[in-house]
Amino acid sequence: MAKKQLRVGMIGYGFMGRAHSNAYRQVGQFFPSDHQVVLKAACARDPDKARAFADQWGYESVETDWRKLVERPDIDAVDICTPNNLHKEIALAAAANGKAILCEKPLAMNAAEGREMVAAVEKAGVPNMVWYNYRRIPAVTLAKRIVDEGRLGKVFHYRAKFLQDWTIKAELPQGGQGLWRLDVAAAGSGVSGDLLAHCIDTSIWLNGRLESVCAMTETFVKERMHNLTGKVEKVGIDDACTFIGRYENGSLANFESTRYARGHKALYTFEINGEDMSLFWDLHDLHRLQIFDYKDPDARGRGWKSVHVTDGDHPYMGNWWVPGLSIGYDASFTHQVADFIKGLETGKPEGPTFRDALETQSVLDAILDSAKSQKWVNVAKG
Amino acid sequence: MAKKQLRVGMIGYGFMGRAHSNAYRQVGQFFPSDHQVVLKAACARDPDKARAFADQWGYESVETDWRKLVERPDIDAVDICTPNNLHKEIALAAAANGKAILCEKPLAMNAAEGREMVAAVEKAGVPNMVWYNYRRIPAVTLAKRIVDEGRLGKVFHYRAKFLQDWTIKAELPQGGQGLWRLDVAAAGSGVSGDLLAHCIDTSIWLNGRLESVCAMTETFVKERMHNLTGKVEKVGIDDACTFIGRYENGSLANFESTRYARGHKALYTFEINGEDMSLFWDLHDLHRLQIFDYKDPDARGRGWKSVHVTDGDHPYMGNWWVPGLSIGYDASFTHQVADFIKGLETGKPEGPTFRDALETQSVLDAILDSAKSQKWVNVAKG
Amino acid sequence: MAKKQLRVGMIGYGFMGRAHSNAYRQVGQFFPSDHQVVLKAACARDPDKARAFADQWGYESVETDWRKLVERPDIDAVDICTPNNLHKEIALAAAANGKAILCEKPLAMNAAEGREMVAAVEKAGVPNMVWYNYRRIPAVTLAKRIVDEGRLGKVFHYRAKFLQDWTIKAELPQGGQGLWRLDVAAAGSGVSGDLLAHCIDTSIWLNGRLESVCAMTETFVKERMHNLTGKVEKVGIDDACTFIGRYENGSLANFESTRYARGHKALYTFEINGEDMSLFWDLHDLHRLQIFDYKDPDARGRGWKSVHVTDGDHPYMGNWWVPGLSIGYDASFTHQVADFIKGLETGKPEGPTFRDALETQSVLDAILDSAKSQKWVNVAKG
Amino acid sequence: MAKKQLRVGMIGYGFMGRAHSNAYRQVGQFFPSDHQVVLKAACARDPDKARAFADQWGYESVETDWRKLVERPDIDAVDICTPNNLHKEIALAAAANGKAILCEKPLAMNAAEGREMVAAVEKAGVPNMVWYNYRRIPAVTLAKRIVDEGRLGKVFHYRAKFLQDWTIKAELPQGGQGLWRLDVAAAGSGVSGDLLAHCIDTSIWLNGRLESVCAMTETFVKERMHNLTGKVEKVGIDDACTFIGRYENGSLANFESTRYARGHKALYTFEINGEDMSLFWDLHDLHRLQIFDYKDPDARGRGWKSVHVTDGDHPYMGNWWVPGLSIGYDASFTHQVADFIKGLETGKPEGPTFRDALETQSVLDAILDSAKSQKWVNVAKG
Repeated sequence: MAKKQLRVGMIGYGFMGRAHSNAYRQVGQFFPSDHQVVLKAACARDPDKARAFADQWGYESVETDWRKLVERPDIDAVDICTPNNLHKEIALAAAANGKAILCEKPLAMNAAEGREMVAAVEKAGVPNMVWYNYRRIPAVTLAKRIVDEGRLGKVFHYRAKFLQDWTIKAELPQGGQGLWRLDVAAAGSGVSGDLLAHCIDTSIWLNGRLESVCAMTETFVKERMHNLTGKVEKVGIDDACTFIGRYENGSLANFESTRYARGHKALYTFEINGEDMSLFWDLHDLHRLQIFDYKDPDARGRGWKSVHVTDGDHPYMGNWWVPGLSIGYDASFTHQVADFIKGLETGKPEGPTFRDALETQSVLDAILDSAKSQKWVNVAKG
Repeated sequence: MAKKQLRVGMIGYGFMGRAHSNAYRQVGQFFPSDHQVVLKAACARDPDKARAFADQWGYESVETDWRKLVERPDIDAVDICTPNNLHKEIALAAAANGKAILCEKPLAMNAAEGREMVAAVEKAGVPNMVWYNYRRIPAVTLAKRIVDEGRLGKVFHYRAKFLQDWTIKAELPQGGQGLWRLDVAAAGSGVSGDLLAHCIDTSIWLNGRLESVCAMTETFVKERMHNLTGKVEKVGIDDACTFIGRYENGSLANFESTRYARGHKALYTFEINGEDMSLFWDLHDLHRLQIFDYKDPDARGRGWKSVHVTDGDHPYMGNWWVPGLSIGYDASFTHQVADFIKGLETGKPEGPTFRDALETQSVLDAILDSAKSQKWVNVAKG
Repeated sequence: MAKKQLRVGMIGYGFMGRAHSNAYRQVGQFFPSDHQVVLKAACARDPDKARAFADQWGYESVETDWRKLVERPDIDAVDICTPNNLHKEIALAAAANGKAILCEKPLAMNAAEGREMVAAVEKAGVPNMVWYNYRRIPAVTLAKRIVDEGRLGKVFHYRAKFLQDWTIKAELPQGGQGLWRLDVAAAGSGVSGDLLAHCIDTSIWLNGRLESVCAMTETFVKERMHNLTGKVEKVGIDDACTFIGRYENGSLANFESTRYARGHKALYTFEINGEDMSLFWDLHDLHRLQIFDYKDPDARGRGWKSVHVTDGDHPYMGNWWVPGLSIGYDASFTHQVADFIKGLETGKPEGPTFRDALETQSVLDAILDSAKSQKWVNVAKG
Repeated sequence: MAKKQLRVGMIGYGFMGRAHSNAYRQVGQFFPSDHQVVLKAACARDPDKARAFADQWGYESVETDWRKLVERPDIDAVDICTPNNLHKEIALAAAANGKAILCEKPLAMNAAEGREMVAAVEKAGVPNMVWYNYRRIPAVTLAKRIVDEGRLGKVFHYRAKFLQDWTIKAELPQGGQGLWRLDVAAAGSGVSGDLLAHCIDTSIWLNGRLESVCAMTETFVKERMHNLTGKVEKVGIDDACTFIGRYENGSLANFESTRYARGHKALYTFEINGEDMSLFWDLHDLHRLQIFDYKDPDARGRGWKSVHVTDGDHPYMGNWWVPGLSIGYDASFTHQVADFIKGLETGKPEGPTFRDALETQSVLDAILDSAKSQKWVNVAKG
């Protein structure tokens, strides 16, 4: 039986462009479906870079203008891997052209942009998804299943951190290839949109709506050379952002992210404490979920279990190797493509959709407002 | 050569009364000095309890009225192990009688009380100390030495948590023997004075003055039977308290404590991130200090070192066993007595003195003010 | 510039057939070279299975007789993924046809077969390699580099374990698809050839020649239903095998493997203790290398460093993601293909070649002899 | 009610003399009973050292000849803390004088001596015990309880290691104060009697009789200056000893000990793998027991539990502090004294008695025989 094609047009060629492309290439072997992904076109402003990227990853053609790409009739889905400041414009155009859209996170520069994007895709009725890939690390998905089964009981606390240390060096410039995350014009914010966004997305998925927050941000290095202008310019992003808050379910939030935590490369951790069970996960050892089960009938033997999430009955893992053999970070993207296709086939979209991701964007807005005003801020709904 | 006697009068007989008494009995064997501790008198309102405690721990006599005890001429030092609401009154009387004072933490119900106590001991010129014992866990003391050597470089972050889970059960009563920590009248506050106080004391010791804080508290179980009245009463303490803040040195603070973190018995952890080095410690594995050294000449081999702080050249450890063999929680009190005696012998008081502990009390006041007002609050000086 | 093709013929379609196929598909994107791998033909006795496998992994054609495949002029390299009892015959035929050979481990049923295979590939002058993939887990490769730099000083101890628990259930049959590892006729041995073989290969790579061994084996479940005959038959494999031994460099060996260690899925660990440095690695957390550096100038701060081997200057990792983001077990195969191609391009074969793998086979022979005779046995040379 | 006195005479004043003395001083406060330990006399050949030790630990009197001490009518129990070569002679004399005996491990220089000692105490009918203190680390005792409840099912494997690194330095002399463990005349053997003895004692307690062993020993530093003679002499002890073996219950043994494992101070670990449950313990984190429970009803959530053995319902812990607060290595001795006294009061001796310890001695003999003969050796019974 011939498979249905899903012809992808990729905009961007950086770290995420590679991660998504790998997922498109892997999904067919590990998560076979009725769809076949076809890498139709890769788009970058620089034709040489576009060509090199297309060659390495197997895209059939190249474009140097994203507007052309989103209009091509032989493209079914547009993947937006550009800096954040282009997400909205591209998404609106892609939606207008009836394309499915897979947009890198965060959804937008702010919630106002996000609302426009949600309206656009919903009006156009096109499938849409945002690459909050950590939901699909098997250990994180297992956490979600456990939460959904109600095994935690009443939840008291949710805490998350995303700690890095790669921008401590003051000589690091801002802006340009690989460094646009330090440029507020391109990124919109610093660690909040880059790192906290992941933490918030997972937390909403696992623990529901965040109602109110009180945040603090800091920019440790105040000025950096700008790669595009060649001048030393004021740094506009947040180097660190920490906040406390309250969830709708009555639990308390404590979040922190920074690029100045010496010794941590990408230490995204979360912990959720319920009356009956607690869960902990850590990106540095992403194949493990830590579970404390208060209902363990052997009270004397209660302890945190380190579950090596590599068994056939663990989420996604039946499609990979054998128990004990772990998969990489990159597999989370493969899972996301597999689920996106599943959504196409079942007609029930798999999240996070643009609408789901808008909720994270509203929390981010509240955080930045709070840090600026030094006040508690309620998170806007919808 | 005859040793000089340090005749101790102990007020209280609970968990801390036992921990301090053990330290007095152990110090002579492990940290010999020119002083000999003599357990002179134990004081409790109930004569049977006073007698039983005295017998078990070897106190020579008993009192049932602390006023009598602090007036006895054969007492050199008074140890205050009562609930917090009695600290001030006893300390003032002891100072007036010229006694050295070792006061259980937190110093007082609030900073106002604390200031009176500081004034009293300083006016009387009596040696004084507060039992923030975690400073003297060898791994924590090692952290202090490393910080003092300037090896961390500029500090960016300090985070600490103290997580417990013992009060989740709603049936647990408040007040009375062993449960006064749930009674606001006796304790003054909940986890903030009980748990955060430790975190704050260590943090000030390691990282200097906290300037401003923004806090949130929660009382998950709103009413509990009161053991003394037999009635269900409103719970006045904080079950959980989390705050963010800023240090005078420019670093950011993130603190959290709770008695509702299922799976954690007494998980006091702190981490400090400097430009050149980071340190992490955890009470559950108290004999280990985790060190990340960015100046490790083997860049390719950088990682968090788990240092088993049990060598002869580690703080205090030369007086115990051999490398690899750990000491218990209780040893921190023995070290504190040893240092208190050292202070007596050198004439240079070892901290934390009442004055040192007042700083923590001021932070606690600011935290509770902030939680109530839902605003950022500056920490009062002095 | 057109790339040179490396046209692969794959024999076998099980777990390893999948792992190797994935590596062939991945290598071009992550480790670009002058060669392009072409998946030319997949071979299995059952035509439906051959076809399904070829479709899923993208092989251009199928064969049902491996003899045909090794004779095809459009095949450059033969990949042997069959049960062990077919390795020799296929390898000899492939060598006779001038094909490069990538053979799954262990090389052969025993050293005698292995010697024939070495002679055949060396006579034919064909590139050859054995899939001892764990050498190319980045943390293991980093260990090798550290050892080669002489940083360990004199080595005293090498210990390794490979613990699993998947065959405890007595109802598990032996033989047939997915279970041939329990059938002595197909596998030659049990955990020794399957698991210890990996441990021995790595150890020889890191620590040199093993001179003598004394081993013990056990078969806990003595009889199992045979899937092919339908009868309960005696189990001929070793369920567990442990041995002690001596290396040529004077260090002591302690090895253990089993499929009866409840709680361990695939816990391959090794540790090497040198005068100046010790190293430890663990397959369950494969992205970490533990290093103890006795020459750490801060004697007081010596401890085991947990190195998250995901930096750009770590072996292979510069070609993947960013620091902190780990790769999976499967990447070790991709690295092996990349190195095999590098060997083709430089003319300097990358190990383990058949000759390298024969050394492991000789140790395995000595182990099984020792277990049978209950005596110390010297490992044959060459 | 007046307590019955247990008047102790201590022979030896080294590391173990201190550890035992501390236990005698602590037991009354933490494990009150009908007995009161009285530190009656301390014995050492050098009168100044005897006096200093007695003063520091509170012994009422001193002796310089152990023969006098064992004859004193005011001594109820003799504690033998001398080097191993004096154990037998002292024990025989103490038994002849009707004294209870607490003998440091290993029981004797060899099983022949041990048999004489067992005969002597059994003939004299005196209470006797050997200080294999690790049985009474709460986590180890918890392991024993779990094993005794039959929760492990059929046992397949028992493995233990005791790794140190303190004798790597070739300049370290042998013999004399603090270094007699390197002198074969005083110690009888090296790591086997010192370290493996602990591992074997625990293993017999948990897993029953070891039937046969095959061992290998090594002396890495062949000659060392002797502290007593001032000459460089051949080293007679084993620096490392590793063995494999079989238990009566059909499980396999793998043991290793060394003083040349760089990075390990006193890493005594054991693991036992049963059909239904596995247990792991590690002296470096002695307050934790790792449990893998295959019968965990949540198959998907199976993992190794890290149990922080500090709860009131954990062995011995109800008498110490509160959950989460750990005790030290030294507490194991206090527990042993408490149990010894319990044995006196109940009339049912608490092990390990001399007879229990003889079994370990027989295994040690078999190990050394095997290492010498390079053959498998059966362990003698009785």
